[in-house]
This record gives sequence, C-alpha cells and structure tokens, in this order.
Amino acid sequence: MKKKPLILVTNDDGITAGGIRNLIDVASEFGDVWVVAPDSPQSGMGHAITIHNILRLQEVKDVPGITEISCSGTPVDCVKLAIYRVLKRKPDLLLSGINHGANYSINVLYSGTMSAAVEGAMEGIPSIGFSLLDHSLNADFSASREVARRIIGNALTDGIPKHTCLNVNIPNVPENELKGVRICRQARASWEDDFQPRKDPSGKIYYWITGKFVNRDQGEDTDVWALENNYVSVVPVQYDLTSHRDIPALTKWNYEA
Amino acid sequence: MKKKPLILVTNDDGITAGGIRNLIDVASEFGDVWVVAPDSPQSGMGHAITIHNILRLQEVKDVPGITEISCSGTPVDCVKLAIYRVLKRKPDLLLSGINHGANYSINVLYSGTMSAAVEGAMEGIPSIGFSLLDHSLNADFSASREVARRIIGNALTDGIPKHTCLNVNIPNVPENELKGVRICRQARASWEDDFQPRKDPSGKIYYWITGKFVNRDQGEDTDVWALENNYVSVVPVQYDLTSHRDIPALTKWNYEA
Repeated sequence: MKKKPLILVTNDDGITAGGIRNLIDVASEFGDVWVVAPDSPQSGMGHAITIHNILRLQEVKDVPGITEISCSGTPVDCVKLAIYRVLKRKPDLLLSGINHGANYSINVLYSGTMSAAVEGAMEGIPSIGFSLLDHSLNADFSASREVARRIIGNALTDGIPKHTCLNVNIPNVPENELKGVRICRQARASWEDDFQPRKDPSGKIYYWITGKFVNRDQGEDTDVWALENNYVSVVPVQYDLTSHRDIPALTKWNYEA
Repeated sequence: MKKKPLILVTNDDGITAGGIRNLIDVASEFGDVWVVAPDSPQSGMGHAITIHNILRLQEVKDVPGITEISCSGTPVDCVKLAIYRVLKRKPDLLLSGINHGANYSINVLYSGTMSAAVEGAMEGIPSIGFSLLDHSLNADFSASREVARRIIGNALTDGIPKHTCLNVNIPNVPENELKGVRICRQARASWEDDFQPRKDPSGKIYYWITGKFVNRDQGEDTDVWALENNYVSVVPVQYDLTSHRDIPALTKWNYEA
C-alpha cells in the first residue's frame, strides 16, 4: 500500500485565518497534514527570517491526521522550523495560504505566503502558494477549495518542476463564473506608493503605506490578464535572481588586479 | 554644467552602522547624498514591508550635500518612503550597504540590503547593493571603499541594465590581496538550518536559528567561486521570478471550464 503523502501547510495571515482553515480541510483529503503557521498576521513579510530574536513553537491541535503548531516567526521561519525541527522527514508537499488577497505579478516578492512556497522549493519540496483576490476576513473560499483540490491533484500526479514552486491566484468570483486555469508568466507591473501622514496624540507625524498597483503589461500570457478574465493564474516561480542575459554586456567591468 | 547626481543611500544594519557610514563617504564624492535608512538592525528582513503598523521618519543630519533621515521600517520601506515621501525627484542612483556580512548566492532573497536594491530596480533606479564578507561591527571597510568607488564610477558612466540591480560582494581580505572584479551568476546553493533550543527562566523552550551554507555548484562563473578566489563578485539581479522554461510543460494543466 502506498504511503500517505506528508503535507506541510502554512500561510502568512496567521493560523486562525479562514484561508488556512479551508486549505487544511482540502489538504487532509490528500494526506497527513502538519500545520506550522504564524501565531499572528505576517502579510508583507516577504522572505524575512528572524535572526535577531527568539522563535517559539506552540502545539495547538493534535488529532489523527492533523497536527497544528503555531509559530512566533515569519512564514519562512515556519517552513524552516517545520523542516529542521518539527517534522521527522521532508514533506511530500508544501501548501501555503489560502491568502486573503492577491499575490500576482511583482507582489510575489512582498508576499509571505509565496515566500514560504519559495523556501519550500529551495528545500526541494514541491510547493504551492494559493491566494484569493479578496482581502476580507470573511472571504468565501468555496471556489478556492475546488481550485486547490484540482491543482494539488495535478501536483501529486505530475510533480512540480525542480527548484520551482507554483503561485496560484484565484479570481474573486463564484465557482460557476471561473473560466478555467491558465499557466502564466508574472506580469511586468509596479506599485505607485503613497504614504498617508497622520498625527499621533502628541502631534508627531507618522505614516501608513498605501499604493496603487499599475500594470503596463499588455501580454495575454500574464497572471494579471488571466485574473482579469476570470481564469485562475498559475505562475511557476524560481529563485535564481540572476539576470543571465545582462551578464555578457557587463563583463567589460571585469578587472584583474 | 551637468547637474550633480542625486544619490539615495540605505542599508539593513541601521543608519549608525560602520558600513553605511563608509558608503555615505564614498557616495558624497559622486553627488548629493540623501540617506533614508533603518533606525535599528533589519538584517534578514528580505523584501518585507510594513503594512500592519505605522512608519516614522526622523531627520538626524542636514549638512550641505548630505541629508540623513532614520526610518522605523524595513529597508524596502526606507526606499519607498524616500522615493514617494522624502525626495523631490527620483534619485539617479541607489546604493545599499555596505552590509556587514555576505549576501551572495541565495542569500540575496533573505537580505534586506539587496531587497532595498531590488526595490530600487523596480522603481527604475540604477541600484547597487554592497556587502563585505565580515559580520563584525568593527569590520575594516577600506578595501570596500575602493571597490564601491570603482563600481559606482562604472555605473554612472555605463548605466545599469533596466529592471536590474547589482549584487556586489567583497572578500574579507586586505586591498592588495583583492584579485579583481568578476561579473557572475548566483551560485546554486542552500542552507542546512539548525535551531538551537534553550529554556527561558520559566522553563519554556525557545529557539535561535543557526545554519550552514552548503554550495554544491562547481561553476567557475558563480559568485561563490569568485569570492573564494578573492575576486569581488558582481551579480546582475532581476525580479521576474517566473520560471519561463517550465511554462510549456505545465500548460497541460490548462483548463477551460
């Protein structure tokens, strides 16, 4: 008999968020689930790790097939602690999310959800990050559950290319309006940030970050295009940041002392 | 008469660190310097931004040619605040560092120093991150100053490819032992993490992250090779994480509802 897959689940919204509760449900249909997820919201933490402070783990649930542990650190801390401290063997699959809010295009860099998946890929674990385009705490994850079920099934059947994880974004529409699934590239876009100044009770100024996402990429093979057209976008994500095509031109800077 | 370049300087070790003091000195030889840097150490913060908390700015110095502002946020927060709140126009150059410690290979993902440079590239600003392979607070930056001077000169003369920044790592050897400068690719390597368990005064366990960097990449065109051979490594870094080569194989997952 084939051994049940060992599935590690994490997120960046915190272990009590609706998105991870739904993902744990779906994951438990496929294998034994271990959850190591932040004890507090960690959105926007990117690939941060905790090196100047201590880390805590706290078991919060242990029922047959599902063990849940909360962690004081970032999403990437959670993955590292899970692999090197909590689990007896490397997981067969890492699932991150389902994030409350979009992580398409360059947002992959800011996203704790996706950085957890990237960390999984760096560890050689097939890893998938899921995000629903709805920030609200009470987001409806019913369509997302179906999408996660399909993609997890694909991943367990076909595998995921080595050194790669998947960035799955799901349009915020009812399931019957989903047009399908598209493999995409990350759209070339940017943020036009704005900082709202406010005064604290003592009159000192502080700021809140806000911003506008600006997509100038007209390609129909991008994640932004897919999502605008009610498709689920799936971007294969890798972590070699080298701009290989720029190396030849820059070699004129090479210098021998 | 040509206008003096406007140079934004930041780092992740904090505005008082020796590395950034040396970088400010060198930068001021080339143009008008604006410093927006963290008010506390932010190593390992990667591309984190502060969205669940407020941000503060505090001017700490304003002399002709050098204005310094400390920021309560991450290195990427510093860059965003500098561009969208502090500076009157986009800077001509962004310099980050000089980091106390290495940022080669996959460490580019964890590094606040390099994430600040990547954020600069996302904003279309020629950006360079500098790191010295010496973690100590009292590191000797004299060779690094020469390296920074050379690379900044190159960048202002030739420019930096669009959507790209540079990851410059400097071996921890005296200047006369530096063998030169090499344009490189990011080595394929990984971390084998370890978490040291300790007990707090009440007997509860906590952890400190530690780990071993493992390079399995034998290429002589990598940053790790260059540094091991006393060359300064320069990796052009971009932020499209799409694994383009994996798209064709995955398109069998495409699905029309």
